[in-house]
Amino acid sequence: MDNGFFVTRENEALLTDLYELTMAAAYWANGINSTASFELYFRRLPPNRSYVLTAGLEQIIDYLLNFHFSENQIEWFRSVEQFDHLDQKFFDFLSGLRFTGELRAIPEGTTVFPLEPLLQITAPLIESQILETYLLNVLNSQSMMATKAARMVKAAAGSSVIDFGARRAQSPQAALYAARASYIGGCQGTSNVLAAFLADIPAYGTTAHSFTMAFESELKAFRAYHRVFPKRTVLLLDTYDTLEAARKAKLVGNDLAAVRIDSGDLLDLSRKVRKILDDDGLQNVQIMVSGDLNEFKIADLVSANAPIDSFGVGTELVTSYDAPALNGVYKLVEMTIGGKRISRIKTSQGKPSYPGRKQVYRYQKNHYHSHDVITLAEEAPSEDGMPMLQTYMEAGKRVVDLPSLTEIRKRAAFHLDALDPSFHDLNGAAEYPVVFSQGLKQELRKAERSIQK
Amino acid sequence: MDNGFFVTRENEALLTDLYELTMAAAYWANGINSTASFELYFRRLPPNRSYVLTAGLEQIIDYLLNFHFSENQIEWFRSVEQFDHLDQKFFDFLSGLRFTGELRAIPEGTTVFPLEPLLQITAPLIESQILETYLLNVLNSQSMMATKAARMVKAAAGSSVIDFGARRAQSPQAALYAARASYIGGCQGTSNVLAAFLADIPAYGTTAHSFTMAFESELKAFRAYHRVFPKRTVLLLDTYDTLEAARKAKLVGNDLAAVRIDSGDLLDLSRKVRKILDDDGLQNVQIMVSGDLNEFKIADLVSANAPIDSFGVGTELVTSYDAPALNGVYKLVEMTIGGKRISRIKTSQGKPSYPGRKQVYRYQKNHYHSHDVITLAEEAPSEDGMPMLQTYMEAGKRVVDLPSLTEIRKRAAFHLDALDPSFHDLNGAAEYPVVFSQGLKQELRKAERSIQK
Repeated sequence: MDNGFFVTRENEALLTDLYELTMAAAYWANGINSTASFELYFRRLPPNRSYVLTAGLEQIIDYLLNFHFSENQIEWFRSVEQFDHLDQKFFDFLSGLRFTGELRAIPEGTTVFPLEPLLQITAPLIESQILETYLLNVLNSQSMMATKAARMVKAAAGSSVIDFGARRAQSPQAALYAARASYIGGCQGTSNVLAAFLADIPAYGTTAHSFTMAFESELKAFRAYHRVFPKRTVLLLDTYDTLEAARKAKLVGNDLAAVRIDSGDLLDLSRKVRKILDDDGLQNVQIMVSGDLNEFKIADLVSANAPIDSFGVGTELVTSYDAPALNGVYKLVEMTIGGKRISRIKTSQGKPSYPGRKQVYRYQKNHYHSHDVITLAEEAPSEDGMPMLQTYMEAGKRVVDLPSLTEIRKRAAFHLDALDPSFHDLNGAAEYPVVFSQGLKQELRKAERSIQK
Repeated sequence: MDNGFFVTRENEALLTDLYELTMAAAYWANGINSTASFELYFRRLPPNRSYVLTAGLEQIIDYLLNFHFSENQIEWFRSVEQFDHLDQKFFDFLSGLRFTGELRAIPEGTTVFPLEPLLQITAPLIESQILETYLLNVLNSQSMMATKAARMVKAAAGSSVIDFGARRAQSPQAALYAARASYIGGCQGTSNVLAAFLADIPAYGTTAHSFTMAFESELKAFRAYHRVFPKRTVLLLDTYDTLEAARKAKLVGNDLAAVRIDSGDLLDLSRKVRKILDDDGLQNVQIMVSGDLNEFKIADLVSANAPIDSFGVGTELVTSYDAPALNGVYKLVEMTIGGKRISRIKTSQGKPSYPGRKQVYRYQKNHYHSHDVITLAEEAPSEDGMPMLQTYMEAGKRVVDLPSLTEIRKRAAFHLDALDPSFHDLNGAAEYPVVFSQGLKQELRKAERSIQK
């Protein structure tokens, strides 16, 4: 384990399922590598959700631009027992493999719905197939996290939400992904220093209980911190007794930024702490709460008018605790066979697929997005709809500038606000209308008839 | 984003919460950096679990050996607005910061229970504090995944379980972590090629539906694959019609390794497919199933005697779907103040901590582990118990060889088998007895009296 147990630019092409490589070998040996189109979509919304907010495209484009196998990786392939009988020419082929195709996708920070293609790859079959695992991983995970963040931010109703979840994320890189995705979803920032360093996300931090415990007394700890960060002191109140600690705030200084309550009955304590601070003339000192929060608890505190200015959220945010996976799939929709583009579908029980390269049009009515229509890519939309999939790469090269994270975050806010308020119900009862165009329906019937089982 | 959005050896020290750094600055400026001990433990078992299986220590040791901030990272710190007023000498201090302390831990592949210290760091306060986020992230995530895998493997009752989850993991590195942890938990291998490359975990792969769809007919696809992988062909049956596909198996060859069913009623289909294969003289062809499996569904299939040889599991395994976080915490337990070692605790509501550096002893009775006793580190155990925490690092250097992944996996199998069968009930009703020693109870009372709030 010379370079540790990390995914990096140097090895990310290997982050794939073995079957992508065995299929590549079988395609190659059978001389099959004509142009194919795959689309990535999810079939059902995760529990409690009425929408999914997309994120992760920037990392996907970085991966596609960098895709290659190194010489020592090819050497290793040759030693894997599944592959040790294969033709040397196949390994030469893998060695030269790059992404040379087209990427179309719905931009990051867009609300999306079941069956809508979030991403479409058109490239020689072996290339387009081998990308499957990584594309799914990145788009599934970041979109899931962005969606969870959006739910919490909506629940907070104007109070800020900050990602404190690095310690509970499902690997160090998952913490990075969560910080980025939750910023897109509307969080004000993150505690994650690496995310701040790599992606310029605003970083926030206070103190831990251990800081208070490291001093002879709580007041000494408070004062020691305030001396070093006079303008940014957030006193953590609940190491010993929350209300007693709140009464010490005025002894520390009247320029405190905030106090934080991390345990106990947050509604009751926030009210009592607010009163103590106000009585002591500390009306400008804000109250932050944290500790196993989720969107439902936040909504309860907000509806009870708890005097809370910001919510620090960890575990539930970064793991999307109530829905820890987005079941995106990546399906072949079109193949060129004998020079002809042919739509492909599968008919597995409960897991159908839909043929042809597609586009999605979004329509507006009375300030809100009213419905989407999924069409074939070349179909003209029947009305004045907004096309959702954009072309990001052609012939393996990026053809547009990517938006900044701030722009992505603004786009997300726009799309979230364009949903009728019922879509922000935390139980996910609303159903956004997504319909297939006539052209797509005809293509589906044609593809069904053409299956040669 | 020059090197992409990855955690690597070069930047992993930054994967920490900002408050670790603000506390470091406050400790430094106040001249506080005497020896401190922190312990990592979880307070409650995750839902449905009667134990947690540890994993991740190898990555933690790698991190501790490599811990440092690079010059351009220090440069960046200086530019962060929270830090821009701090003394240059503090940045010089950070620049020279390495882990110089002691690491004691329970080995990977051990069953553990609430309040048991899984890991103990003794080092100058600033060092030991700053590690918190990363240590928690790694041990929380991998242990959670290893535990989920162990549950599935037990449910499979001898049939093999393989990790197919890379596409649903919560980031690319989470897929790596899941492959490693699930191998420790007893899985037979993984589909994840990078995990096979980096950690020599056995890799498995079959084909996707798209492979079948890329050919003019299903039979042509089956034969094309078999030509290239004659000894390792696994036919995926459910692209169009599972039973029709099963009837084609004999036309492909009698040396098939297996067939895979990925949708539909797996009990009914596995029985019907088994009969078709047997009638066609293909008794040696195994049946693998996959598709949104979890330990409960596996147990149902096993108890119905479904003729299934292996289970490919994805989403539920890699995300630990029903319990996607382990709530490990990292708490100050001892400080040296004025040359004296002083135990520390906090008394937050519902989140107490326990004083002093500890050891855990495990006891055996009639082939099973009967109970554990948590003692102070220097206490002699009252009976013939097995000490659980081992010393891995002293003065910042590793002092023992690390076990191979195979050895860790064997250790896990030993500890899982040493649990009374009731602990493998999937609903997690059993409670393992963990008691505090007299010495630890006395220390707790002493620490409570000594708190100067």
